[in-house]
Amino acid sequence: MIFNKTLDNLKTYTPGKPIELVVREYGLDTKDIIKLASNENPRGCSPRVIEVLKESMKKINLYPDDSMYELKDSLANKFKVEKENIIIGAGSDQIISLALQAKANTHSSVLMAGVTFAMYEIYSKQVGAKILKTKSSSHNLDQFLDMCHKNSDVSVLFLCLPNNPLGECLDIEDVYSFLKKIDSNILVVIDGAYQEYAKVKDKNKKITPKNLIEKFPNVLYLGTFSKVYGLAGMRCGYGVANKKIIKALNKIRSPFNVTTLSLKACVEALKDEEFVSKSVEENFLEMSRYEDFISQNGFDSITSYANFIIIKYDKNKKSKVIAHNLLKKGIIVRDLGAYNMNAIRVTIGTPKQNSKFFNR
Amino acid sequence: MIFNKTLDNLKTYTPGKPIELVVREYGLDTKDIIKLASNENPRGCSPRVIEVLKESMKKINLYPDDSMYELKDSLANKFKVEKENIIIGAGSDQIISLALQAKANTHSSVLMAGVTFAMYEIYSKQVGAKILKTKSSSHNLDQFLDMCHKNSDVSVLFLCLPNNPLGECLDIEDVYSFLKKIDSNILVVIDGAYQEYAKVKDKNKKITPKNLIEKFPNVLYLGTFSKVYGLAGMRCGYGVANKKIIKALNKIRSPFNVTTLSLKACVEALKDEEFVSKSVEENFLEMSRYEDFISQNGFDSITSYANFIIIKYDKNKKSKVIAHNLLKKGIIVRDLGAYNMNAIRVTIGTPKQNSKFFNR
Repeated sequence: MIFNKTLDNLKTYTPGKPIELVVREYGLDTKDIIKLASNENPRGCSPRVIEVLKESMKKINLYPDDSMYELKDSLANKFKVEKENIIIGAGSDQIISLALQAKANTHSSVLMAGVTFAMYEIYSKQVGAKILKTKSSSHNLDQFLDMCHKNSDVSVLFLCLPNNPLGECLDIEDVYSFLKKIDSNILVVIDGAYQEYAKVKDKNKKITPKNLIEKFPNVLYLGTFSKVYGLAGMRCGYGVANKKIIKALNKIRSPFNVTTLSLKACVEALKDEEFVSKSVEENFLEMSRYEDFISQNGFDSITSYANFIIIKYDKNKKSKVIAHNLLKKGIIVRDLGAYNMNAIRVTIGTPKQNSKFFNR
Repeated sequence: MIFNKTLDNLKTYTPGKPIELVVREYGLDTKDIIKLASNENPRGCSPRVIEVLKESMKKINLYPDDSMYELKDSLANKFKVEKENIIIGAGSDQIISLALQAKANTHSSVLMAGVTFAMYEIYSKQVGAKILKTKSSSHNLDQFLDMCHKNSDVSVLFLCLPNNPLGECLDIEDVYSFLKKIDSNILVVIDGAYQEYAKVKDKNKKITPKNLIEKFPNVLYLGTFSKVYGLAGMRCGYGVANKKIIKALNKIRSPFNVTTLSLKACVEALKDEEFVSKSVEENFLEMSRYEDFISQNGFDSITSYANFIIIKYDKNKKSKVIAHNLLKKGIIVRDLGAYNMNAIRVTIGTPKQNSKFFNR
């Protein structure tokens, strides 16, 4: 059977190894494995979510409410925007894909930082768009601007704030200055998956979606329930933008793209701000232990505004080998070899998990 | 902002109204509303599923196992195929979309019955393919064959067995004869969303995926957990096909497309065959009450092999008005006006729900 040519050169995503797989591959016991590979919240989720899920189970035989009224209402209140400014996806990941389907194509380019979230490139290739990356691995807005001017076919650009997998984050004022200078027909996707962390560490990194979309009708802000809210397994994220963008994306959104339980869980998760603030607080307390570990061992790193940190190695060590040795001991981290970096990315775990990492 | 032209002429799906919406729109109480609009299992789901979900909740902070090892293993055992013959989607709906993305394009046509599941057309339009429908509203294989011969650009064709929304179902022997006569480069999607019902009512309708895919390497069989398994809210379905087809679809499947709880629920649902057989048995017992109601009132219908039945009206009645009047009384059914039919489709409910429909 002959498939469409677009399938020929696709990249596929390599997820962090799930615990179940490590159990099967290395014969380890589930309880001895710690997963510091996918930037999940090691504290779990709000206990209120668990209670709501128990109540909601009797309705799982019915299709989800495709209008997603309740969750849109909660997000609209949180961000002080209208429900028509919000789209809900099966992870913010799905909204990245919708944005590219709506705006990029075989005649256009998609611009992103040299090292950034892998799905931007994967979904861009699926729609046949050309990939442009800045020379700088971290976000450099001068380079972004230069490339926008030199490539008139840029249809979508991604800013990941903070950036996964590096951890660095632009100041919002710099982002605003940049947005004023670029063509308003470029769809700018600002991925705020780790914003809840960044804005606590440094208020200059804080994005207010309402201000952003009012000033710039070409910006799509993304948020997720997979990180600090502790709901990665539920697959739910959201986009906030001008109503025209939301309407366009909804045209290609599949019906019932988010499960009933996920919608209920996210509505409840938004109510528990204390869980979020406790998680962020512990994250940065524990991150300082990693910073000490890195400097004490003579490794290199980048200041992280998220819930992970990278450890860079010199020529004498190979990140691939280090990640593999950790895996054999039941510690799952992310080797950044696929990004052409001799480094690993480690999710900040619980105090106990982090101690296990340091004493590996 | 200018979006891709492909967005211009898209159709969007109109889901059955959710109970929450009817509550808001008509000021009714949730308990007074019965939803017979979306072919869900009115008995709920297996109680075993509820127990497993309670146990699985502590892991929702972690991303799902993207290899979907456990569910693929269960399905492979059920169908006596290999795991590599199986793909899992967020509803079989998502696999329909993947099949079209992999195989159809702006230079090809997609063929389907005159009246069939709306998503075939919606997803075909998203990839820019031309839509071909048989003159016959129900499945007529002579017409399918004729159109395949007359249109050399047919890349994908859909057989919905039994057909939603009409309820009719082809005999598997006729399907096999048809498959032998068509070009093996056409991807034939056989949608078995309601197979669990059809095969009990008439063994000539029973599809055995293993036989099907061994005989025809160009066939993709689809199944779902949204119907008899009572898990529509969990969004999970599957495809069974030749490994090459599965590999192609997996290339464009997004990572983590099914939630952790959905995977766990479906594995458990497959273990409870008694729940399935009881549901099917009650479905057809209750369907006979609808058949009596239809003949006693002088309406028309089509023999249904699924968990719904259509009621056709003559010129003196308008299905749209009937559906609206039922809605005001808290009974949600599907008006088939969008399919150019003066008919409604009613999901077979519980005995109590059906009595309420008859005494509306």
